Amino acid sequence: MIVERSGSVQITTSVMGRNDRFAALNRECIRAAGIFALNLISSPGAGKTTLLEAMARRYGGRMAVIEGDVRTRRDAERVEKAGSRAFQIETGGACHLDAEMVGKAMETLDLPGSGVRLLVIENVGNLICPSGYDLGEDMKVGILSIPEGDDKVLKYPSLFSRISVLLISKTDLFPHLDFDVKRAVMECRSLNPDVRVFTVSAKTGDGMEGFFGFIDEAAESASTRRGSMP
Amino acid sequence: MIVERSGSVQITTSVMGRNDRFAALNRECIRAAGIFALNLISSPGAGKTTLLEAMARRYGGRMAVIEGDVRTRRDAERVEKAGSRAFQIETGGACHLDAEMVGKAMETLDLPGSGVRLLVIENVGNLICPSGYDLGEDMKVGILSIPEGDDKVLKYPSLFSRISVLLISKTDLFPHLDFDVKRAVMECRSLNPDVRVFTVSAKTGDGMEGFFGFIDEAAESASTRRGSMP
Repeated sequence: MIVERSGSVQITTSVMGRNDRFAALNRECIRAAGIFALNLISSPGAGKTTLLEAMARRYGGRMAVIEGDVRTRRDAERVEKAGSRAFQIETGGACHLDAEMVGKAMETLDLPGSGVRLLVIENVGNLICPSGYDLGEDMKVGILSIPEGDDKVLKYPSLFSRISVLLISKTDLFPHLDFDVKRAVMECRSLNPDVRVFTVSAKTGDGMEGFFGFIDEAAESASTRRGSMP
Repeated sequence: MIVERSGSVQITTSVMGRNDRFAALNRECIRAAGIFALNLISSPGAGKTTLLEAMARRYGGRMAVIEGDVRTRRDAERVEKAGSRAFQIETGGACHLDAEMVGKAMETLDLPGSGVRLLVIENVGNLICPSGYDLGEDMKVGILSIPEGDDKVLKYPSLFSRISVLLISKTDLFPHLDFDVKRAVMECRSLNPDVRVFTVSAKTGDGMEGFFGFIDEAAESASTRRGSMP
């Protein structure tokens, strides 16, 4: 049993070391291209793709998307239809994206010189496993949708302690559900005092301008860091 | 790299072999006690605990619940308040329950002779990782909630191909969301032709009688198999 456990730890460390090396490469490419990169993480069905459709309608060719799903190409098709380029990763059984998968997708998207300023990686729908994998992104964005309930932050601390932005989504459903925004935000800040919070409905557009303003500013600042690189 | 990969496969096989041995033990105990056991799997916030509260109000002391969460004891407290015994497993970082954790919880619950006829294991909220772990249950029940969207079945085939029952939950939200029940059921049957389907709202009670009838029958049949055991 001890052999089994120590073997397991060794493998985990080795997998994470390998992932971190690929993440560092991705980060280098992203910075060199002057791109701002987000890693979008949520439960299945929290509204990641609907949010990306709204972003694609706004950013068009200035945004590219890497879609992660266990199976199907449905999400990439939706984003492309809304106006941005998208590359679908089907992970097979895997419950998260890793930096190597994302690096290969970035190569295919051929970002440098493409006019893309914003890269969004839509992770596999899962509040647990994706949070531990650095993909080379600038920020992790966690989405919590109103129907999931306001008690989820402390249940999934590994994600909510690591995100830079909390998006509370599907606010159009407020009239039909009990969800205490103050509780969710307070619990998130207890893990993560500096988290930025936006409440949005990608369906009605409610709150989206604030989120877009934040993205515009971050992308602008990422494009200037290119010049400052050695 | 090859060493890393082969090591990884070896460990996975060893972990699953270990899990299967514990699952067989759990199954033996469950059968010997004449109990019917369900393994409830869904995304975070699909309504597992609200369903269990409704079941606790109906079955009271005849039901016991094992709650799986990464963190917090919130779900066990809700179920106990509604009238059934509950044992909370906090998995720490783990994204699924395994049979060893469940076996320990069963020991603590001390089921034989307790009057419990129905054991429900609420797995960690995750559509991917829990589906591969046998816990010794009689049936896996998959919950898909209306707000998650009708496209989720084919995205998460490892779960939806293994369940005996599909519960489409939160039907009270039908008027506010587009969800094509026929599509979800058809896609689930394409993976899993014999799946039983119930559409329910644990909040309003809509459809719950059909689901309770199914449980009553299965529990009745489980209680008689005790007598037929060697």
